[in-house]
Amino acid sequence: MSRILFTCAYEGSRRRGWQSQIGGNTVQDIIEEAFLKIVREPCRIHSAGRTDAGVHAKGQCFHVDISERYRIPPDRWPLALNAQLPSDIRIMKAEIVPETFHARFSAVGKTYRYRMEKTRILSPFLADRAWAVHGDLNEAAMGDALNLFCGEHDFRAFSARRGNEPNPLPPDFYVRCIHSAELTSEGESLYITLCGTGFLYKMVRLVVGAVYHVGIGQMTLDEFSRLLDHPQKGKSPYCAPAGGLCLESVLYPQENILL
Amino acid sequence: MSRILFTCAYEGSRRRGWQSQIGGNTVQDIIEEAFLKIVREPCRIHSAGRTDAGVHAKGQCFHVDISERYRIPPDRWPLALNAQLPSDIRIMKAEIVPETFHARFSAVGKTYRYRMEKTRILSPFLADRAWAVHGDLNEAAMGDALNLFCGEHDFRAFSARRGNEPNPLPPDFYVRCIHSAELTSEGESLYITLCGTGFLYKMVRLVVGAVYHVGIGQMTLDEFSRLLDHPQKGKSPYCAPAGGLCLESVLYPQENILL
Repeated sequence: MSRILFTCAYEGSRRRGWQSQIGGNTVQDIIEEAFLKIVREPCRIHSAGRTDAGVHAKGQCFHVDISERYRIPPDRWPLALNAQLPSDIRIMKAEIVPETFHARFSAVGKTYRYRMEKTRILSPFLADRAWAVHGDLNEAAMGDALNLFCGEHDFRAFSARRGNEPNPLPPDFYVRCIHSAELTSEGESLYITLCGTGFLYKMVRLVVGAVYHVGIGQMTLDEFSRLLDHPQKGKSPYCAPAGGLCLESVLYPQENILL
Repeated sequence: MSRILFTCAYEGSRRRGWQSQIGGNTVQDIIEEAFLKIVREPCRIHSAGRTDAGVHAKGQCFHVDISERYRIPPDRWPLALNAQLPSDIRIMKAEIVPETFHARFSAVGKTYRYRMEKTRILSPFLADRAWAVHGDLNEAAMGDALNLFCGEHDFRAFSARRGNEPNPLPPDFYVRCIHSAELTSEGESLYITLCGTGFLYKMVRLVVGAVYHVGIGQMTLDEFSRLLDHPQKGKSPYCAPAGGLCLESVLYPQENILL
């Protein structure tokens, strides 16, 4: 048995998210079908995390255990799988990892990027890939909100219930550490890039929704920081559309990689 | 009656080309349906030219005659139409033009751009938007082929039959003038930009296919120039995929525009 770590990219607009579900058409289902065609037996793939319907990825990671019978060198795996995959899902890289490695539990961080376009008419080439926002945005205030967001906090005000939370909840269940949260712009494009140890369900889209409402003056910095400081006192109500979001990369300690 | 010139953009991968046809799902059909919803009577739109299934546009143009009953100021038209259109088709601009103006016959030039990506694994964000080419490309030879292409020529070797050609053919039926033909690169992206008075059916894709084959050494510059100099002696056999092609803009004499 050898454990292989794959890096994949997908344009999520036609898919029902990462995680396998009844009815299929999820990225996981489609990739598992591609493995089935190659190794001729069901393969379970284990990702660094899920992404919602419509969310994209440039650097999603997953691992698979492959029987020694299939002596495919790692650099051949992307070609073999891509030949079986639709063009909106691509395997970018494959690396052998130790059997102690786990795509989810070995991850030490993730980077998400959210794209907004300051335009009244969103280019058809950005449909489902950016959130069209127009009107005056106070970008300095948006940057200030993002600064408040950095560090270790209980982020439950910026999370949605998934329904499979443990009961009772461990006290640090909603605690995450955000290493950096930046607003950058490039022409009409505005990016929010978040880098942290992990993210709660819908956390990035709820942050982006709140930061946008700070930008248009419909949420104050005080309200924003109250949500962080008093997490039991209510949820942030604004969720940005899925299409603007992309999982850019998953961070692993370098020593995990054998090849 | 006032004649309005519209500029539109579309991501063509889910559409069956520009021109209206039985079964619908063409860009023209979809835009005409949007007009029908607004003005409540069938509207025929007249474009600068057709694009094939899967081809994109950033600056396709068309004109429509609108009855004086509909007093919609030109700058409101894009919003009104976009509200009725799917997100892969956007109206970017509307301008009143004289009644002597015609989107096709008043056009004095068009610019097409073709995108290639030098990669073995085409990003899922470029699927249906670029042609993945890999291996060594002789870009200098490709540039030389494009230089040969400039100027006035009988381009029939780089055209496909549409089936509706006049009989007998006028002697200059296949003659066009190409003002510029450039190869540029940006990272892994390679662009061929053609600017000319007009283009024959499938001409850009046939040129790109030939230029690519010059680049990989499977067509010589001599063979390329023979196709231009002896147009009766055969057709160029290589057609590049539709997804890499984009109609960038249509050129009109400035005095046509009233507003």
